[in-house]
Amino acid sequence: MSKLVIVGTVAFDAIETPFGKTDKILGGAATFIGLAASQFNTDAALVSVVGGDFPQSYLDMLKGKDLNIEGVEVVPDGKTFFWSGKYHHDMNSRDTLVTELNTLADFDPVVPADYRDARVVMLGNLHPNIQLGVIEQMEQKPELIVLDTMNFWMDNSWDELLNVIKKIDVITINDEEARQLTGEYSLVTAAKKIREMGPKYVVIKKGEHGALLFDESEIFYAPALPLEEVFDPTGAGDTFAGGFSGYLSQVENINFETMKQAIIYGSCLASFCVEKFGTRRMEDLSKAEVHQRLMQFKQLTQFEIEID
Amino acid sequence: MSKLVIVGTVAFDAIETPFGKTDKILGGAATFIGLAASQFNTDAALVSVVGGDFPQSYLDMLKGKDLNIEGVEVVPDGKTFFWSGKYHHDMNSRDTLVTELNTLADFDPVVPADYRDARVVMLGNLHPNIQLGVIEQMEQKPELIVLDTMNFWMDNSWDELLNVIKKIDVITINDEEARQLTGEYSLVTAAKKIREMGPKYVVIKKGEHGALLFDESEIFYAPALPLEEVFDPTGAGDTFAGGFSGYLSQVENINFETMKQAIIYGSCLASFCVEKFGTRRMEDLSKAEVHQRLMQFKQLTQFEIEID
Repeated sequence: MSKLVIVGTVAFDAIETPFGKTDKILGGAATFIGLAASQFNTDAALVSVVGGDFPQSYLDMLKGKDLNIEGVEVVPDGKTFFWSGKYHHDMNSRDTLVTELNTLADFDPVVPADYRDARVVMLGNLHPNIQLGVIEQMEQKPELIVLDTMNFWMDNSWDELLNVIKKIDVITINDEEARQLTGEYSLVTAAKKIREMGPKYVVIKKGEHGALLFDESEIFYAPALPLEEVFDPTGAGDTFAGGFSGYLSQVENINFETMKQAIIYGSCLASFCVEKFGTRRMEDLSKAEVHQRLMQFKQLTQFEIEID
Repeated sequence: MSKLVIVGTVAFDAIETPFGKTDKILGGAATFIGLAASQFNTDAALVSVVGGDFPQSYLDMLKGKDLNIEGVEVVPDGKTFFWSGKYHHDMNSRDTLVTELNTLADFDPVVPADYRDARVVMLGNLHPNIQLGVIEQMEQKPELIVLDTMNFWMDNSWDELLNVIKKIDVITINDEEARQLTGEYSLVTAAKKIREMGPKYVVIKKGEHGALLFDESEIFYAPALPLEEVFDPTGAGDTFAGGFSGYLSQVENINFETMKQAIIYGSCLASFCVEKFGTRRMEDLSKAEVHQRLMQFKQLTQFEIEID
């Protein structure tokens, strides 16, 4: 079984949407990525940090999904990273209410020895220097390094971000961030410029409008499933990244064709994530449900046209 | 050959985009719809009105595309409808600078006698009472009536709009307008509510994010082609509607499957429309170019996934 290294936050989230409000619940990029990746036939390890306040039951749940958590450091007298946010009515924008870095402030990731030869590395949204630190711990160049990032690092750690972008194969980024990173409005031109910064493949996430995959010469467009109700968008982007990297870590050949499939899997899993608060839906997701929704994605996008 | 009736404006446009500025050039919903429909094997007639200031060369160009223009009334001492607009930098929004209704103010459409048994009627964006007047002139119920409209009529002629919406088969509308028409944010819920108003099929246009087709139970999503440069968006929605209705007027069976194809054709033609100012690109468009771009749409969206 291929190995997959996932680095990112394991956290507490408190979320408010027009539909309701949670206390501190399980969240974090690595959590969502890991839960999505656990849908695939891959040997995945989380690399993260939590405080002594982090419930053992959450760790047990992740272990129960066959995720290796050796690399999740527990700092007994530290507190777990905490984020709180409130979504606006349209669910496309949100305000951050609280960010407490806590143990994340001094996070020094350690990739477990058994995973330093992993085939795929998924760098969840974090300080670019931490992402770089993980790459440097790999004993051999992974076949695929995927990086997720966000505007915060463009605003605050530009040089460090460019430095890690040089060393990766795929970047996943949203449309506004792609525009900010390149100064280009057209996503086609933006993707071209991002490719010049390093990655061979660029994935641009457009939320409810789907996602685009670019390589040197081709473009693929995966829609998001049109939903009657988005209950809580938290973690949808991470779930997408987890589906994407999880699927690719199990395929025979990693190339544009399998990346198209990986994007469909990522979109499919993200469409579940938003159905309930936090990780709830992803914790209970069955393979049968995933397969049924993949059929919906096919119906949604596939057509026959005879071109004479 | 099936007959197609197209009603809408034939107009002068003056357009300003970040790329440049035009004097009065050929525009109007019926013009763009007609040019798109002329790509198909259909016998299409335009129903519209112009003033004595409208150049014969424009009428000749439309005739040269095998469009019947008997129903385009020329009011010798009247002036042609004139619209002028300026696009913002992102090309997704625009300001209207001038609207001169001129002969359009008293437009009383007359469907040519030979076309009152048309198979398909395409009602371009106009006052809902004019759209209704065209439906009432048809001697037998057309197999398909498609209606395009916009927020202006929701703001100003709500009852009349609802009245015509009752009598049609397909509505094409953009996402914001669908939300305004129903008070629903979710496009899935909005489409459901619009179907309850009359049309069996709802097409929601999302500009650069593509288009959605809904019937009672299915959804289809066609992307827009990601473009490096949008030169002038004027007429893209009408071109989409023209490709959609033009294609359907030539197919053997009009159903959800052929409507999916029609949406791809509409999106494909719209992707050409925006490449040059006004109607320029559509006037010179060859079948070979269209077929090549259809192949691009296939590559953009089609994938193989084995679902075990």
